[in-house]
Amino acid sequence: MAETGTASTRADGGVRSIARAVEVLELFDAQHPIRQLRELVTLTGLPKTTVVRLLATLESLSLITDRGDSSYGPGPGFLRWVQLAKSLWEVSSETRTTMSGLVDTCGETVNVYIRQGLNRIAVAQVEGTATVRSVVEVGVPYPLATGATAKILLGGAPEEILHELVSRRPDLSLEPLRREVAGIREAGYAVTHGERELGASAVAAPITNADGRIVAALSVSGPTSRFNADRVGRYVDAVTSAAERISATGLGPVEVFL
Amino acid sequence: MAETGTASTRADGGVRSIARAVEVLELFDAQHPIRQLRELVTLTGLPKTTVVRLLATLESLSLITDRGDSSYGPGPGFLRWVQLAKSLWEVSSETRTTMSGLVDTCGETVNVYIRQGLNRIAVAQVEGTATVRSVVEVGVPYPLATGATAKILLGGAPEEILHELVSRRPDLSLEPLRREVAGIREAGYAVTHGERELGASAVAAPITNADGRIVAALSVSGPTSRFNADRVGRYVDAVTSAAERISATGLGPVEVFL
Repeated sequence: MAETGTASTRADGGVRSIARAVEVLELFDAQHPIRQLRELVTLTGLPKTTVVRLLATLESLSLITDRGDSSYGPGPGFLRWVQLAKSLWEVSSETRTTMSGLVDTCGETVNVYIRQGLNRIAVAQVEGTATVRSVVEVGVPYPLATGATAKILLGGAPEEILHELVSRRPDLSLEPLRREVAGIREAGYAVTHGERELGASAVAAPITNADGRIVAALSVSGPTSRFNADRVGRYVDAVTSAAERISATGLGPVEVFL
Repeated sequence: MAETGTASTRADGGVRSIARAVEVLELFDAQHPIRQLRELVTLTGLPKTTVVRLLATLESLSLITDRGDSSYGPGPGFLRWVQLAKSLWEVSSETRTTMSGLVDTCGETVNVYIRQGLNRIAVAQVEGTATVRSVVEVGVPYPLATGATAKILLGGAPEEILHELVSRRPDLSLEPLRREVAGIREAGYAVTHGERELGASAVAAPITNADGRIVAALSVSGPTSRFNADRVGRYVDAVTSAAERISATGLGPVEVFL
């Protein structure tokens, strides 16, 4: 199939190449700003020649920098989008202040998630104070099917998103999911334990825009061991009132996309 | 050729797809955070079906956001690289202070450029105070053949870079370029008028690392009308002494790549 060279095959090849290039770029993060070629080969599972070709292409576009000793880092070309992405997807300083206040109250990491298609993405984060803390990366897509913020965001998603999600996840059924989402929407908050990852808990509440539509989810998340019944009660209070405050003052520039 | 579907054609197709995807993403900047589909088609010169396919691929990777009315913006997926690119390519706060001082002295936009392969890229910028001012975008590759910072950076580049540059630019000859670069290196600064763009002038000086190697170029740039003989003398003094100060205190985190 891949050898026929028809227009559609080439189109798919193009899509695959772009996805692979992004996959390589995604291997660089705060913990791994520099990667060896052999790491990139192992982590992508791609042939070395393919990885070398991807790196050369990305380097010619200034998106990868070659340090000359078979080690690579993200290139300076990203700087052109730094200000842009920040200015477009940033939350307001008032929102950030409310998020910091929530960290002070709960001690746990606070995130604002938005929905993009069938994913949820954290666009703002204030880290918790404990050594063992929830770490999700800002800008990284997570599935919309699991986790407290996913359930909140589904409450604001069009009906067809639920259908599409269920059609892609054989472990989900439409009716139970719809009931759960409606229930959470009515309650005004969600509490999950180990849904996305064993040992990780979260409390989330909806952020609404001026029309009352759910545009984002505010969460505190951390190790399940600290999310006991006593604390969860306090967290629900703190998260829902912080989310209401953000809804009242406005989330920030990011709202134009939501 | 493109229709044969051999391994090498598909490889080239992959490279081309990645380049096209980046080309689309590069159309978004501070002045154009949102673009209409028809603008993207016109500006890329690609068939509409190709642009739509590229946008769909980039959206699935969270690098493009579809606003639902045939308008698009850079996606929140960029946020994952924002902190990383900033932390890797950032100059020190001392460097930034020196740059701001240079803006105060000259009134013109100040940039720090580095070399990446056959390109130069601004990694830090402090904008000038005049209404008519030099605007280059941080993170955007410019050719290494023209402009004051290019000539400074060539003074720190390996001999093979000069050869490669000349082999790709029929308008350049090795010996004159080598002489010019050596002369500028000896003088310790470069002044250019209209080299890259008619009406744009710049004064640049080298930033060196602890080993005395040229790792970056500091520049003031603006309209040629303001770069008269009297002012240029002052600018040369101000830029060279600011570059020396930065060289003495260190450029910042970005140095590990240079």
